[in-house]
Amino acid sequence: MIERNTLRQMWSTGAETLGAWLSVPSVVSAEAVASCDLDYVCVDLQHGAADYSDLVAMVQAIQLAGGIPIARAPWNDHGIIGRILDAGCHGVIVPMVNTAAQAQAVIAACRYAPNGQRSWGPTLAARNADDYRTWADQSIAAIPMIETAEALRNLDDILATPGIDAIYVGPADLAISLGLGPTGNDGTPIFDDALHHIVDACRRHGVVPGIHGSASVAALRRSQGFRMITIASDIVEMRAGIARSATQARSQ
Amino acid sequence: MIERNTLRQMWSTGAETLGAWLSVPSVVSAEAVASCDLDYVCVDLQHGAADYSDLVAMVQAIQLAGGIPIARAPWNDHGIIGRILDAGCHGVIVPMVNTAAQAQAVIAACRYAPNGQRSWGPTLAARNADDYRTWADQSIAAIPMIETAEALRNLDDILATPGIDAIYVGPADLAISLGLGPTGNDGTPIFDDALHHIVDACRRHGVVPGIHGSASVAALRRSQGFRMITIASDIVEMRAGIARSATQARSQ
Amino acid sequence: MIERNTLRQMWSTGAETLGAWLSVPSVVSAEAVASCDLDYVCVDLQHGAADYSDLVAMVQAIQLAGGIPIARAPWNDHGIIGRILDAGCHGVIVPMVNTAAQAQAVIAACRYAPNGQRSWGPTLAARNADDYRTWADQSIAAIPMIETAEALRNLDDILATPGIDAIYVGPADLAISLGLGPTGNDGTPIFDDALHHIVDACRRHGVVPGIHGSASVAALRRSQGFRMITIASDIVEMRAGIARSATQARSQ
Amino acid sequence: MIERNTLRQMWSTGAETLGAWLSVPSVVSAEAVASCDLDYVCVDLQHGAADYSDLVAMVQAIQLAGGIPIARAPWNDHGIIGRILDAGCHGVIVPMVNTAAQAQAVIAACRYAPNGQRSWGPTLAARNADDYRTWADQSIAAIPMIETAEALRNLDDILATPGIDAIYVGPADLAISLGLGPTGNDGTPIFDDALHHIVDACRRHGVVPGIHGSASVAALRRSQGFRMITIASDIVEMRAGIARSATQARSQ
Amino acid sequence: MIERNTLRQMWSTGAETLGAWLSVPSVVSAEAVASCDLDYVCVDLQHGAADYSDLVAMVQAIQLAGGIPIARAPWNDHGIIGRILDAGCHGVIVPMVNTAAQAQAVIAACRYAPNGQRSWGPTLAARNADDYRTWADQSIAAIPMIETAEALRNLDDILATPGIDAIYVGPADLAISLGLGPTGNDGTPIFDDALHHIVDACRRHGVVPGIHGSASVAALRRSQGFRMITIASDIVEMRAGIARSATQARSQ
Amino acid sequence: MIERNTLRQMWSTGAETLGAWLSVPSVVSAEAVASCDLDYVCVDLQHGAADYSDLVAMVQAIQLAGGIPIARAPWNDHGIIGRILDAGCHGVIVPMVNTAAQAQAVIAACRYAPNGQRSWGPTLAARNADDYRTWADQSIAAIPMIETAEALRNLDDILATPGIDAIYVGPADLAISLGLGPTGNDGTPIFDDALHHIVDACRRHGVVPGIHGSASVAALRRSQGFRMITIASDIVEMRAGIARSATQARSQ
Repeated sequence: MIERNTLRQMWSTGAETLGAWLSVPSVVSAEAVASCDLDYVCVDLQHGAADYSDLVAMVQAIQLAGGIPIARAPWNDHGIIGRILDAGCHGVIVPMVNTAAQAQAVIAACRYAPNGQRSWGPTLAARNADDYRTWADQSIAAIPMIETAEALRNLDDILATPGIDAIYVGPADLAISLGLGPTGNDGTPIFDDALHHIVDACRRHGVVPGIHGSASVAALRRSQGFRMITIASDIVEMRAGIARSATQARSQ
Repeated sequence: MIERNTLRQMWSTGAETLGAWLSVPSVVSAEAVASCDLDYVCVDLQHGAADYSDLVAMVQAIQLAGGIPIARAPWNDHGIIGRILDAGCHGVIVPMVNTAAQAQAVIAACRYAPNGQRSWGPTLAARNADDYRTWADQSIAAIPMIETAEALRNLDDILATPGIDAIYVGPADLAISLGLGPTGNDGTPIFDDALHHIVDACRRHGVVPGIHGSASVAALRRSQGFRMITIASDIVEMRAGIARSATQARSQ
Repeated sequence: MIERNTLRQMWSTGAETLGAWLSVPSVVSAEAVASCDLDYVCVDLQHGAADYSDLVAMVQAIQLAGGIPIARAPWNDHGIIGRILDAGCHGVIVPMVNTAAQAQAVIAACRYAPNGQRSWGPTLAARNADDYRTWADQSIAAIPMIETAEALRNLDDILATPGIDAIYVGPADLAISLGLGPTGNDGTPIFDDALHHIVDACRRHGVVPGIHGSASVAALRRSQGFRMITIASDIVEMRAGIARSATQARSQ
Repeated sequence: MIERNTLRQMWSTGAETLGAWLSVPSVVSAEAVASCDLDYVCVDLQHGAADYSDLVAMVQAIQLAGGIPIARAPWNDHGIIGRILDAGCHGVIVPMVNTAAQAQAVIAACRYAPNGQRSWGPTLAARNADDYRTWADQSIAAIPMIETAEALRNLDDILATPGIDAIYVGPADLAISLGLGPTGNDGTPIFDDALHHIVDACRRHGVVPGIHGSASVAALRRSQGFRMITIASDIVEMRAGIARSATQARSQ
Repeated sequence: MIERNTLRQMWSTGAETLGAWLSVPSVVSAEAVASCDLDYVCVDLQHGAADYSDLVAMVQAIQLAGGIPIARAPWNDHGIIGRILDAGCHGVIVPMVNTAAQAQAVIAACRYAPNGQRSWGPTLAARNADDYRTWADQSIAAIPMIETAEALRNLDDILATPGIDAIYVGPADLAISLGLGPTGNDGTPIFDDALHHIVDACRRHGVVPGIHGSASVAALRRSQGFRMITIASDIVEMRAGIARSATQARSQ
Repeated sequence: MIERNTLRQMWSTGAETLGAWLSVPSVVSAEAVASCDLDYVCVDLQHGAADYSDLVAMVQAIQLAGGIPIARAPWNDHGIIGRILDAGCHGVIVPMVNTAAQAQAVIAACRYAPNGQRSWGPTLAARNADDYRTWADQSIAAIPMIETAEALRNLDDILATPGIDAIYVGPADLAISLGLGPTGNDGTPIFDDALHHIVDACRRHGVVPGIHGSASVAALRRSQGFRMITIASDIVEMRAGIARSATQARSQ
């Protein structure tokens, strides 16, 4: 039985949670990353390359290493959200949730009746608890992404949706939606204001504000009030490390 | 057609070659690593987790990114060495070559008759040249590993084997064979002497001395005379980068 | 050419059909299960772990062993239903069909025009018949799942949808939707009544009533009037058999 | 960096483009096909057997061989269209686009804001250009399929949708929708008229008319005005070649 | 139960057998090829790209289509020969058998005691017969490759090895070993003589002479006395068909 | 860190160890089996269908469920034995060890210098201990199979090989080698005597006697003195359970 505190337990104490991002579909890298000092490890089924059977094995690898597995769904689709949770994930990040109706669809996919319409069949997920149904109600984190101007306009309605545990800002898509480039926007008022607006609304609604990022912006995000911060990515760290090693070795 | 200079062309000019190591069986990480400034990228079929069909696709990914693919065989086995070359690799590192007879077996697996006994069937490898047979004779690098006390004793016989282009030192196995621990042996005379002995013998026989390593020891290895130096590994860089990011983010 | 009677042929004679469930994504287990005395073998793409390419190979394994392959779709999605049938399945079970409109969507995905909107391209499925289009119209079983209180309310409308061959009760989800726990509900009036209501409505509409189950409840389900009964699951039988063997071996 | 002209560049000069179709999920066949003299190579995720991770590796194989990769989505689904483009495809063919709203959904999935809602994360696709976002806006081909009577009725509205670069006729599905059999319809007025009507409307709207086909009908399609013509399929050519070889060898 | 005559039954009647070659690791192409009029279908684990789990599923696909599956081992290795037969293959082609001792090793791997040392465990292969052990003794074809000058010198000893059912000439490797190029050697006396010598020796020893080839040389091989002739390859036919289609379509 | 006692720790206390056998290459079934009350779970790379990358993920699944993973090598091959241990297995069963030299080869592959020649690179295996090298020396179980008449003749020499922790009888192959059929031999004196002889020799040499079996023979094997007994197999239990369920459901 998995003994570690879940994300929702950590959040309920007010704790900050830091995580890593997996774009490489391999159980080898998944176990290596999950052995680091992280609060969650997220398998990206949207912009990453994994198929569902990759996810099933990678969640095992993450849990073997003592990590807490979550995944990003490819889209706000009832079927794949259920399958992600059936693999044993403790939560799901869902892209492009722009309206309350879309937020409700996320909840419907994450919760069993009467709180939602998730279908029963946790063959693998049952490893998380003796009484999985109770555990799932208490532990599964439903995490819509806030990443468009439309979502900003509907933010209070989205955050008021019963069952939303946290939201996750996609800063690149949010910036593009605000008319900016995908990166390099900290310090631009329209971008900073949007983040401030999101964190502020989360506080009012008792929702944990999360955001995609890197170690270099972690302190800034913390100071902005974010409490779920992705601080590294497998493929980014690997490529940067190899490139840095090559430069170092050639220049000595 | 692949236009880049091969390892043997680079070596023939006296150039130093630096490379990276792939332990993760994924085309995603393979392409990312191969896009860095490297002279070769080696898929490890001995201690890495890839199967042969992983190798086939990873070699494509490496060549797409402009890298030069080689692989380490799981063992000195004629069948898998041929398959590695058939996948399109420009060379093969073969573990635990301790005698001249074992070195001859490596050559037999790497060269077509009359220089060896490699079997014809380069369906994929033919992408490397219009006339693959001529290209293969001129380009395939046969690279036995020198990593035991027995190999040190037989070094001149091994290096005198016709067709040996380079050798590759496995410092961990060499150290263990010399009665040391697998790592941290630079400065220990028996270890330093062994490396010196290997480089010296390579110079006498016109063979390129290679060695497994990391960016932090690259300058030392260069000063010792090595000309084929592996300076980074996918899984090591990934794990270190994620761990460093977590520490950095938590400590700010 | 596959000679065996299809599910719809068996149903047309009033025959009862018994099947098994595959949650393990492997051609090895698929062939083993399909070699048993079963009327259908269902690959579960909802709560099972298979990806589409697993399904393609597992359908081959099932048909090699003389079994009749069907699959459960991950969700009521036109694209995956078409792909399931293209793999050669004789039918598709579709989760959470709660309204007549949803039932019509199932039919649209299962039938070629003018009866639906399935897209033509049966590269693999063509193994089922010389004239696949005619065979498909006569043989593909469209099987919506009835597993919510909402579906019970809309049952007559769902069953009146032209093209519905059978329905499949998910007893766990149905129970949860009725306010019960996922298992152990036989004898609870609200549950028994729901099953009675479903079978009764099926009889009126000429639709075959099916249900998920196990060997231990097969006799009960038969007495309730179900004619498509899943009586075993790969992973359940495997785990139970191993656990029983361990207990037996330890206690002797 | 990939230097070859994109489909949209070729189309902008009025050039005809010929392509091949991949139904076999393998990097081996993908590279072999892409080495032929073709303007595009399309991986079929609708009626073909590939999963997403197959696509990722097959796109690498196609680009390694100098081919231009596109893919057919399994359905008009925002999530998978984005993933197809993230794999590095230069375009996406989307089945069963019957209304302007459905065409707009295709564009929304293919274009970044403000022209659409594609989500940012081109880890693999970034191989196509130093500035991927600009490249994507200029290069990604959004290609709805016209293959139903309903689409014919809505053709002007579909073609007037901003961002449609080309359309792709599925002649089998179009024929079925028109009450014909899936093949052998050239010369049948209702079928010929539909093709004429589509090409004519494309000319008026400045959209490239494309169609699925084979080498034997390429001249006819060209004379009908089609400028994107699929002229061969991996599995069809393989099976025909093997069958022809067997006949030839037996009859000599 | 598989009813079709085995290769050895066909050979025992003096019949000629024609086959196809699979280099693409896919169950889709395997089934398509096996549906043609062939006496055997060979999965190439030496120069092809398949791993063992590909073989397992491809053998299912071949047998589903009514084909007789054999495989070429990557090398004369006891372990993989046993695994190939365990997958259900009716025979195994073993590369580079140059001595009687090597031929005996092939037999040892193919036959159960007392005729050899094959290990028992035919979980999948048992599909071939109710009494697999008897069937295997009567049906498994052990087929060493004759493809070097050394093998020619030892030919009588090799062919006299008890249990050799057929031999298979690799004309490319044989030519290379004879000092020629890999292709285009028919008409060259040293090559023609070698083939004549092999067929002649096979006749004397009651062994079936086989050879790798193509449809265009089938008649010649038949006239030379070969009775097991590979007349087509998946990847060759696919690439040739696509290339021919492109040329045809462009030139019309 | 994995806390559970290793096989060698259990054996050192005189404990009996019971295990299960995995022939299905899937992480889903591996986790399910490993969650049962077993002392080891063995992935069969000889007669099972798994490739190496299957093994890597299955070992993770077994360890996640708290099981102790071992594997059977496809053959007595240095390369694959090392790779099996690198995946994290606690031991390796090696087929057909018939001589002391072959037993020494097993030890050479399992032990680091100076006790053997295993190559260093435990990227995944390092999960087993902070000091993997020490752990490996103390924990890795080297388990040759005794399954031929030749091995019986050489038994004392084999068992006297330093480093042999246990042996594993393959009763089917042993029986075939003794001139019997593969199954049903208990009670036949030549077979019973062979088992008695093996257990007796093991006692003299301080080696643990192991044997392949099933729950139904566990008590007999215990009474014969075996202390490592495989009591169930995934595929056998699955097929038997499905067949029994079908019979039960049809007969009610």
